[in-house]
Amino acid sequence: MNRVEATLLNTPPALVALPRRLDLHASDPQDFRQRLRDYFVQTFDAYESLFRTLAGDAAWVEKPITLRHPLIFYYGHTATFFVNKLLLTRLITERIDPQLESIFAVGVDEMSWDDLDAAHYDWPPVARVQAYRDRVRALVTGLIDNAPLSLPVNWENPWWAIVMGVEHERIHLETSSVLIRQQRLEWVRPQPGWPLCPDRGAAPPNTLVDVPAGPVALGKPFDSEHYGWDNEYGRHAAEVPAFQASRLLVSNGEFLEFVTAGGYAHDAFWDDEGRRWRDFAQAMHPTFWVQGHDGWRLRAMTQEVAMPWNWPVEVNCLEARAFCRWKAQQSGQPVRLPTEDEWHRVLATSGWHLQDARPVDANLYLEHWASACPVDRFAHGPFCDAVGNVWQWTETPTYPFEGFRTHPIYDDFTTPTFDDRHNLIKGGSWIATGNEAEPESRYAFRRHFFQHAGFRYVVAKAPVRPPASHYETDDLVTQYMEFHYGAEYHGVPNFPKALAKIAVEAVGHGPRRRAMDLGCAVGRAVFELARHFDEVVGVDFSARFIDQGVALARGDTVRYTAVEEGELVEYKAVKLDDLGLQGTAARVQFWQGDACNLKPQFGGYDLILAANLIDRLYDPAKFVTTIHERLNVGGVLMITSPYTWLAEHTARDQWLGGFKKDGESWRTLDALRALLGPHFEPLGAPRDVPFVIRETARKFQHTLAQATLWRRVR
Amino acid sequence: MNRVEATLLNTPPALVALPRRLDLHASDPQDFRQRLRDYFVQTFDAYESLFRTLAGDAAWVEKPITLRHPLIFYYGHTATFFVNKLLLTRLITERIDPQLESIFAVGVDEMSWDDLDAAHYDWPPVARVQAYRDRVRALVTGLIDNAPLSLPVNWENPWWAIVMGVEHERIHLETSSVLIRQQRLEWVRPQPGWPLCPDRGAAPPNTLVDVPAGPVALGKPFDSEHYGWDNEYGRHAAEVPAFQASRLLVSNGEFLEFVTAGGYAHDAFWDDEGRRWRDFAQAMHPTFWVQGHDGWRLRAMTQEVAMPWNWPVEVNCLEARAFCRWKAQQSGQPVRLPTEDEWHRVLATSGWHLQDARPVDANLYLEHWASACPVDRFAHGPFCDAVGNVWQWTETPTYPFEGFRTHPIYDDFTTPTFDDRHNLIKGGSWIATGNEAEPESRYAFRRHFFQHAGFRYVVAKAPVRPPASHYETDDLVTQYMEFHYGAEYHGVPNFPKALAKIAVEAVGHGPRRRAMDLGCAVGRAVFELARHFDEVVGVDFSARFIDQGVALARGDTVRYTAVEEGELVEYKAVKLDDLGLQGTAARVQFWQGDACNLKPQFGGYDLILAANLIDRLYDPAKFVTTIHERLNVGGVLMITSPYTWLAEHTARDQWLGGFKKDGESWRTLDALRALLGPHFEPLGAPRDVPFVIRETARKFQHTLAQATLWRRVR
Repeated sequence: MNRVEATLLNTPPALVALPRRLDLHASDPQDFRQRLRDYFVQTFDAYESLFRTLAGDAAWVEKPITLRHPLIFYYGHTATFFVNKLLLTRLITERIDPQLESIFAVGVDEMSWDDLDAAHYDWPPVARVQAYRDRVRALVTGLIDNAPLSLPVNWENPWWAIVMGVEHERIHLETSSVLIRQQRLEWVRPQPGWPLCPDRGAAPPNTLVDVPAGPVALGKPFDSEHYGWDNEYGRHAAEVPAFQASRLLVSNGEFLEFVTAGGYAHDAFWDDEGRRWRDFAQAMHPTFWVQGHDGWRLRAMTQEVAMPWNWPVEVNCLEARAFCRWKAQQSGQPVRLPTEDEWHRVLATSGWHLQDARPVDANLYLEHWASACPVDRFAHGPFCDAVGNVWQWTETPTYPFEGFRTHPIYDDFTTPTFDDRHNLIKGGSWIATGNEAEPESRYAFRRHFFQHAGFRYVVAKAPVRPPASHYETDDLVTQYMEFHYGAEYHGVPNFPKALAKIAVEAVGHGPRRRAMDLGCAVGRAVFELARHFDEVVGVDFSARFIDQGVALARGDTVRYTAVEEGELVEYKAVKLDDLGLQGTAARVQFWQGDACNLKPQFGGYDLILAANLIDRLYDPAKFVTTIHERLNVGGVLMITSPYTWLAEHTARDQWLGGFKKDGESWRTLDALRALLGPHFEPLGAPRDVPFVIRETARKFQHTLAQATLWRRVR
Repeated sequence: MNRVEATLLNTPPALVALPRRLDLHASDPQDFRQRLRDYFVQTFDAYESLFRTLAGDAAWVEKPITLRHPLIFYYGHTATFFVNKLLLTRLITERIDPQLESIFAVGVDEMSWDDLDAAHYDWPPVARVQAYRDRVRALVTGLIDNAPLSLPVNWENPWWAIVMGVEHERIHLETSSVLIRQQRLEWVRPQPGWPLCPDRGAAPPNTLVDVPAGPVALGKPFDSEHYGWDNEYGRHAAEVPAFQASRLLVSNGEFLEFVTAGGYAHDAFWDDEGRRWRDFAQAMHPTFWVQGHDGWRLRAMTQEVAMPWNWPVEVNCLEARAFCRWKAQQSGQPVRLPTEDEWHRVLATSGWHLQDARPVDANLYLEHWASACPVDRFAHGPFCDAVGNVWQWTETPTYPFEGFRTHPIYDDFTTPTFDDRHNLIKGGSWIATGNEAEPESRYAFRRHFFQHAGFRYVVAKAPVRPPASHYETDDLVTQYMEFHYGAEYHGVPNFPKALAKIAVEAVGHGPRRRAMDLGCAVGRAVFELARHFDEVVGVDFSARFIDQGVALARGDTVRYTAVEEGELVEYKAVKLDDLGLQGTAARVQFWQGDACNLKPQFGGYDLILAANLIDRLYDPAKFVTTIHERLNVGGVLMITSPYTWLAEHTARDQWLGGFKKDGESWRTLDALRALLGPHFEPLGAPRDVPFVIRETARKFQHTLAQATLWRRVR
């Protein structure tokens, strides 16, 4: 009797058994070790049990779909994942099998549907992979039993890698079940422990349920008692207007109306992305529907059955959206997919929450069947399937909450999906366990991708406002974001903040109505000056720079990467609130403009700051000799520059200084004195203000700007 | 009676009078003010007197030679020079006449003979320039009488600008006299105060005088009692082998033999530069020789006279060299021009030194005539004209002595001539006064240029070794020179020195026979390691870098510029002695080489340092996986790098780290551990070592290299 069989004997009849989730708030190390051991072993067992549905070598090594690896890869992958993450937290220092671990390291992301697969692999025999899994199992259980443990197990604890490995395996338990469902039918076979729901019938009618307006407050604290992936942490709050939501998930029967109505063929129901996918895939019905001799059948994980019309339809996000557009046309109502926030309002309205009693009152945690079930089987308040059965697509592309940060040993779990192309799925499916089954979990897939996922539709007037999830990666912009809003390096204080302080001191008791920051870049000094001025205008030649200031002023969190080494980056985010600048937003404006050719609207300022500007202008003399026109008499002009004249910015014959003139060294400071003299008097002596711009975690520009202050006197 | 006339009345008959020189070692301020006032006023007067030789407007505004301004410029220029330098030392804060001062600011350097003159000027009337000079005279005398004075007047004293102005005017007294001599004869007229020597006759025969071997020790101390230009200061010492020198300067009569022998036409007597000049100028005889109806005549300053065959011939350096080659061919002896050192040996052998008695015993200080005189008129020991009469060309291109630095208010007096194209002239002429007349003075002109200059020839077996005067200006090389040998910035200690210290500590009590610095750049660590190792080899891909180390090891002073702002630079110099590294030179070698393809000769090292190398290699993995072959077992490998991988140096697929590998962040440190593992064990933990590279006086790269140490164990 092998281990998988033993596992099966120990489970409730006909189902693999899994602890639902792991409580991290332990005080007794021995108890924690035991619970973690069970959590690991039973997950590892369940995963191996799942793969027993594969019949014959081809099932293991032939790809179910072109865009992913064959199943043999995923069998090894979850074990290798443990090794890799344990190495990173130094719980282990040696690999088990470098060759296999190289093969099993990287899963294929759900790429664009038209990517070609160019990789070729010689896959190892299943027995070798099984032996490898056995060694990893022994390694992990050995660690759990013997490695030094200090509680609590949180992000900083090296044991986090073990929990991460188990949760990662549970994700693959589900995604592998989808791949098995996509494998050729003759290569899979039903197995005990993975039973199909026997309840199939006609589709129940769907209706709309009112969801009252109300708040959502999302985001997990970093000391949560349950494991989370990076994007669950932080804070998100919103007020959701009232809307209606369908009582049931859309069933195969309800979706048939759309298919029968020619919904797949009718372009108007599909957005551009949807049409491109549909045409490429030649989709005419849901992917798991099979046209049989006697009508529609459904491909379940290991078998094909007569279509269970009362089960939820499983489609991708693009199909679900098309259905909603058809439904909107049919009903004359604003039908669409719910947002993430609306999904939480449905959940709150349903009143569902996890209770200890087993089996759970939802098609979740593998506690009922290894398949979907009727959409009206589990009533949750006025809804059915608030959670469970199949995942529910939302309209919301995944995005980071306020306070988001990546976990150091898995910084690319979520960040690659912050691209407005991955939409969140919520609620979990029949095979979702552990973190997957938490309402807080936030998995996202490309909108054309298939999971055990369907949808509930809503009727809502509120437009969907796409969240900001973009990480700015443009090198110059990210360097300036870090320069203005990021960390301090080499002990040098924040430069725009220091300049604003000097400028405000120079203005002294003079009027503080209007200020301008010319060459404001990404705008930090604009906000800092707005602490003291009624109105501050930031002007820069670069719209890419201006955009950052505009977004911050709008209250957005601006996200950017900071190069660490080579292509490796840190993920950074900034928001005015974090800097105590939220109150300044109403007093600032940003404009794209040319300091050598300013529009007439800019004038009447009490302060003009030109920081590190003059040596980047094409005609600096024009700027210096006309800037008084924009400044009130008595107003202050502040110029800072390292005087780094470069022909690429300023033609040599336009440099203000830095050359021999009439036989003498002619410095830019000489030129400023000469050119500003007709309208200005110097305010104090020139002073040096240092600044540091980070290029990588190890390489910085460290510069001394010279700051000169001038009062307009005529 | 105008002032010029008054001056003339106050001078000894037929000559302008000038104080010979100014003693700076004053203790009585009033006395110093008086002496300086006389020194200034009489110089200013003499200059104005000289220009009274010009007859008519054309004489002032038509150029005597195409490569220089007309004389009106020089009339204003010496006055403007005072204003400019006084502004720089803040003795004054306002210009007198910005328009004129712009016109009169920059003289035309004695450029290449084939430069075109594209500038056009509207010259002001002489009367306006005279009025301007009067204002400057009043300004300077007012300062001398009233400005605060603290003694001594040295380089740091703002009054240095006044002395500099006077010495500058004395230079132009001479160079203007040359231009007047080059002006059309009908535009000049003899003047009282500028009399021609009446003694003209046949040339006396020349002979050779033995000069014994002996030392020279040149270079003025910074507290010298007499004014000096920058290149006179510092130290130079040499042992000069015995040689012979011509008793007399070469006379017109002696030079005629060369002309008559077809010397100008015979290519073999001319070097490339000489041939190019001769062909361009179509020169067939000395420039001041005029072919008259009745034979050769000589153009003197204001008149043409029958050729004084016994006066010194006046030629440029190229003509003098051609004569020497002809003379060598004729005599079968190694005839050439003397070097600067040899000139000083002639002076020492002559026994001449300045005495108080007037007039001076040499055709110098304008104390005899306003022209040359017979070459046998002034005997100085076994020689004639050890000083005076006409300047004497030397074979030595001007170069800076050890300890050279530029004066802050005139940093381009000498530095532009450190180009191996300006040869020193020594000894002074009949119109040389003040600093010009000091044997210490070191004026230099392009070799094709004319002054009141001739030559003495020597017979010497010792080859002429050209001194090093080149200032390295290549941006990257100069940045690295400053990085390795220059100042410390941002408080960061010298990097190569710090690395050598760490490396030596890591080697500990192990053998210290042979070390290699791979990627040694300009070589500082090579020398630092040679304090501790028997033999250190520096290897770099760049010959430009290697050349600096080679020069330093040879004992040279290496000179380079450091960008300050725009085109303005500081002049820097370094020598092993300055760093206490002179003892290491015999133990170092530098080779050009490729770290990815090292020649077999490099091996058997106890230490290999690879500082900031790996991220600049085209195949870093090859380097890292083969470097053990060069190291003794037990030897130490030290690698430092900021891991700044850039596609311009290393193709992306050759980077060692800085990317995701098998799904995990793969840092360069991971790669080093993996690739070095088969042969090395780490020595201690990685550590950060900062370094700073100056780009300008205000802009720096400030970087943290990671240093890892490895012991070869197998």
